[in-house]
Amino acid sequence: MRESGCPEEDLFSFLLSKRQEDLGYRNILSSMCTPPHPVAARAHALFLETNLGDPGLFPGTVALEELLVRRLGTLMHHPGAGGYATSGGTESNIQAFRIAKKVKPVKFPNVVVPASGHFSFQKACDILGLEMRVAPLDAEYRMDAEAAAGLVDENTVCIVGIVGTTEYGVIDPIAALSEIALDRDVFLHIDAAFGGMVVPFLENPAPFDFSLPGVASISVDPHKMGMSTIPAGCLLARDPNHFSCLNVETPYLTVKQECTLAGTRPGASVAAAVAVLEYLGMDGMRAVVSGCMENCRRLIEGMETLGYPRAVTPDVNVATFSCENPPAGWRVSRTRGGHMRIVCMPHVTRDVIEAFLNDMSDTHA
Amino acid sequence: MRESGCPEEDLFSFLLSKRQEDLGYRNILSSMCTPPHPVAARAHALFLETNLGDPGLFPGTVALEELLVRRLGTLMHHPGAGGYATSGGTESNIQAFRIAKKVKPVKFPNVVVPASGHFSFQKACDILGLEMRVAPLDAEYRMDAEAAAGLVDENTVCIVGIVGTTEYGVIDPIAALSEIALDRDVFLHIDAAFGGMVVPFLENPAPFDFSLPGVASISVDPHKMGMSTIPAGCLLARDPNHFSCLNVETPYLTVKQECTLAGTRPGASVAAAVAVLEYLGMDGMRAVVSGCMENCRRLIEGMETLGYPRAVTPDVNVATFSCENPPAGWRVSRTRGGHMRIVCMPHVTRDVIEAFLNDMSDTHA
Repeated sequence: MRESGCPEEDLFSFLLSKRQEDLGYRNILSSMCTPPHPVAARAHALFLETNLGDPGLFPGTVALEELLVRRLGTLMHHPGAGGYATSGGTESNIQAFRIAKKVKPVKFPNVVVPASGHFSFQKACDILGLEMRVAPLDAEYRMDAEAAAGLVDENTVCIVGIVGTTEYGVIDPIAALSEIALDRDVFLHIDAAFGGMVVPFLENPAPFDFSLPGVASISVDPHKMGMSTIPAGCLLARDPNHFSCLNVETPYLTVKQECTLAGTRPGASVAAAVAVLEYLGMDGMRAVVSGCMENCRRLIEGMETLGYPRAVTPDVNVATFSCENPPAGWRVSRTRGGHMRIVCMPHVTRDVIEAFLNDMSDTHA
Repeated sequence: MRESGCPEEDLFSFLLSKRQEDLGYRNILSSMCTPPHPVAARAHALFLETNLGDPGLFPGTVALEELLVRRLGTLMHHPGAGGYATSGGTESNIQAFRIAKKVKPVKFPNVVVPASGHFSFQKACDILGLEMRVAPLDAEYRMDAEAAAGLVDENTVCIVGIVGTTEYGVIDPIAALSEIALDRDVFLHIDAAFGGMVVPFLENPAPFDFSLPGVASISVDPHKMGMSTIPAGCLLARDPNHFSCLNVETPYLTVKQECTLAGTRPGASVAAAVAVLEYLGMDGMRAVVSGCMENCRRLIEGMETLGYPRAVTPDVNVATFSCENPPAGWRVSRTRGGHMRIVCMPHVTRDVIEAFLNDMSDTHA
């Protein structure tokens, strides 16, 4: 550390220069995050000093976390779901596995995860000492439910289904997984970190949530399509009591027990998540999602016109193509299957799509 | 969720009403958090939309995280330490145990933790399948190093020492633990979540950090005495390569591997942590810490004058007393040993101490 401090203006010139080295979101087509909604930023600032890790000190912020859980539970067709605000999808997945492992204490536990699973499942298995059994995908990158059923045995503590896969934006056959889970009495965790804030706002979506009786827990991230600030994830469980198996005693705090992964936890991003949901309502979220889906369709159509076929028709706003090189100045990503991948987040507006298509057309002319 | 949205002004009236249900920090004497420093709040806002989970998109924010690690490593007498910004002490402790477990892969791993250990160690052991061996404390609530050595066996993957215990604010005999760690070839993790931002700013502190050759990793939380925003923890390791054993492959991101617990991670609170360190420098931090220590001494003196003896003379700014009831309107906490506990954070100014002592005197008159 410096011996003496730095004047505030010099410090902020330095910080601003660093901030300017970051890419602007306008040309980022590879991220499942997006700039926070203005009401999220405003709510975040209002709750900046709150700490959900010591709930007795911040009962108003705790009430917002409870409201977030209730809103998301209702959105997932189970207003009585238990839950809490996590740091994001990875923590949610780790905690779901922890619950599943405690619900069924076997000596050599395994979990069945689709090949499309986010890398956080590898982390979770490594941390928790779980064998990960990888279920293959069908031709459209959805989990093969029959093959998954074949991987389940008496040591299987959890099956994972994904709603809005990271790479191809498809939805696993959750109804079939629900039946397998009921039939074999296995905990079914739904990773809807991305799709959980998309699918409920589509027209006539297939059921993927607590409306299916086999679904035991759901991960949904307000800091992705919920346009909240980071970190804002949420883990929901059908049975609120499931969280009690994670409790540790918490002496010297204002509560006696804690089931969360972290201790000190920000209230700001939770307030931000609530703010967006309340401000937009179902109507507003439908408008955002329908815009993203429409832009996604336009992108696919435009790319195909240029000779770059889609890898698959996605269920959510993630588009993938057989295309090697993006035009200069754009940040896209690449799937493990070798496809170009673009996430049509709210900041990827119609203008951005047209500018990208224009550059694609120039580059490859 | 509501069908239609809520006007922004109605929403913020509601959010403000919730925020007002929270306690103000002025009367909170029980927390190891404090309102963020004004430069922390300003830096936080500037970096609100950044995501350290996708480093290639935010190279400027990544440079700040590297600066934070370098500053804290230097403060801990090892500028070349590896590290990253965690969500706080719990994640840091979990990750340190993960590293220790991988460094020494034994079938039935155990860790030796002092009885004063934060409850996050129980979480970490539960998650990672580690046996926790609890070392007793001496009469001043410091870990009994000899007893700890007696608990170490060939399956011990980690010893934990604490710098600034949560309950009594004391420092374990880290030099002795360092010798045991070297002698028995065991990974030594120092939980300095609180004390790491206090002890280096005291006059002539006893060595507790990488200057002791047996210390392998250190947890330090800028969101406690570093006056940053939440979440801002930091895990440092003497050997930067130790983090590579936590790596998972990260397809479709701008980097190929990731060693952190979370995926998406806020840059805002990391920028805030850097801002405070740069703005205050060593001199400024010494002034803050010396004020807190002086207030702590004044509190102890005042309480003893009122007939409430200290439980122990603390090494950092945590005061504990034989006293049953706090005066109305103040939030103190209680240790497992039954003592009243007050953390003299920066918001607990001399005025606050005098007001508290006054109320104590009135209450018990």
